[in-house]
Amino acid sequence: MRTSIECIACFVRQAAEAVGLVVEDRRREELLRLLLKEIAACDWRGSPPVVGQVIHRIIRRELGVDDPYRALKRHLNDKAEELVPVIRETLGRRSDREAALLRVAAAGNLLDAGAKSGIAPQDLHGVLQRLWRLPFRGDARDFFRRTAQARSILYLADNAGEIFFDRLLVEELPRDRVTVAVRGAPTLNDATLEDARRAGLTGLVRVIANGSDAPGTVLADCSAEFREEFERAELIISKGQGNFETLSEEDGRIYFLFTVKCEVVGRKVGAAVGTLLCVPGGGG
Amino acid sequence: MRTSIECIACFVRQAAEAVGLVVEDRRREELLRLLLKEIAACDWRGSPPVVGQVIHRIIRRELGVDDPYRALKRHLNDKAEELVPVIRETLGRRSDREAALLRVAAAGNLLDAGAKSGIAPQDLHGVLQRLWRLPFRGDARDFFRRTAQARSILYLADNAGEIFFDRLLVEELPRDRVTVAVRGAPTLNDATLEDARRAGLTGLVRVIANGSDAPGTVLADCSAEFREEFERAELIISKGQGNFETLSEEDGRIYFLFTVKCEVVGRKVGAAVGTLLCVPGGGG
Repeated sequence: MRTSIECIACFVRQAAEAVGLVVEDRRREELLRLLLKEIAACDWRGSPPVVGQVIHRIIRRELGVDDPYRALKRHLNDKAEELVPVIRETLGRRSDREAALLRVAAAGNLLDAGAKSGIAPQDLHGVLQRLWRLPFRGDARDFFRRTAQARSILYLADNAGEIFFDRLLVEELPRDRVTVAVRGAPTLNDATLEDARRAGLTGLVRVIANGSDAPGTVLADCSAEFREEFERAELIISKGQGNFETLSEEDGRIYFLFTVKCEVVGRKVGAAVGTLLCVPGGGG
Repeated sequence: MRTSIECIACFVRQAAEAVGLVVEDRRREELLRLLLKEIAACDWRGSPPVVGQVIHRIIRRELGVDDPYRALKRHLNDKAEELVPVIRETLGRRSDREAALLRVAAAGNLLDAGAKSGIAPQDLHGVLQRLWRLPFRGDARDFFRRTAQARSILYLADNAGEIFFDRLLVEELPRDRVTVAVRGAPTLNDATLEDARRAGLTGLVRVIANGSDAPGTVLADCSAEFREEFERAELIISKGQGNFETLSEEDGRIYFLFTVKCEVVGRKVGAAVGTLLCVPGGGG
């Protein structure tokens, strides 16, 4: 999907929050002024994560650190890890286990430092308590039928913290046919190989990096190896709003699993902000 | 108060909403890019309405219209006018009439096209139903004691629509000693002479324009006549968040009456977003 006028204010909010990572007041202002100019000069015809990639590259370059979100990601992983046993226990008691797994994975997507309606790690516990009452749109039976039939499944992970919830879902997929892909380098609070390792995914299924530092899956920016995996996969599970924003025009092999976190995406999918979504894309 | 880093994203949101008034997609994008560059180049040392003034001047210049918010202001006035009889009736039944008047006037401040947490005209009725349960901070007895004693009162109005609620309060003040001031020219959805007339204030008390098109009261930008009125007034009732932002460092003659609409102001006054506030400023 294309970047819309409404996305621009969201980029600036993200940029202002990111410069909050810089301690000195004067430096903050300088960096934010630079980011405003860069956003003004950016190509807005791409999807929002394409602009996000530009912003976060500048932030890393100007801060002189390769991963300004490292501490936040650790905190997200800590919080998620803490909750996993609770969720496992609850899942064990559900009669609608399949739909429940999708709900859990989609709700994990709320752990997003980039989204206006994302939640702080400390709020996650509260969300999980409301989880079964959150609006959900999806056909769990169809999802699991397709994953059972597919000879190869590419699971595109999204954020740190969230990846612990992905693990719960991946455990229930035919593991020998699943490959999980993470970002190729740190960007925003997106999951990288380090987070996949921490969530125990590397011991469970094949995990690859996509070669890109976009906070989404910008195919043209990914490595040739990743693009090949993408082409070959019979079924793609695209996790998170950033992956949706970058892949929404792709073919029907994709199942999108995320929480609707802004009105622009909400209008595109015809669902209210806050809806947990599990929908096939394109001709799917 | 000074503009903070957090205000910048809010300016861009305001700018993006304002360019929504331009119909053609391509023109919208151009204008927003220009505004981003102008915000980046602005002096951020002033209060937020100083930057707001720059933004809204550019918007009017680029759109080639002197008042892009005219239709919205008319709509706000229509809605407010519709509700006045209902409010009058409710006020008549309250035993805490003084505090109730302040609540009504402060809640009218929610009709703000600039604030993130402002409400749409159609939501006003719902807010009024919750009005008596909204958090309120203020000493109504002290407020009315001071207005009864003051030999001259300058009432700084804020927005269109809201000004109908101001009228309900002004009716209860010693009218021969009250002067209401509005903006000198259209800016955002702020009230001008036209709105004061529509709300019936001109027939009730003396009404003046402040000579400025800032969405607040930037004294240095106001006319000499207005500054004289300001100096002479024994008591100033400053309505709205924009007036608070521009006058918060002034002396103790000011009573601020507004709804806290963002966290930056909330931190400054030590109140949560959504609080109806009626507090003396400075040494007050």
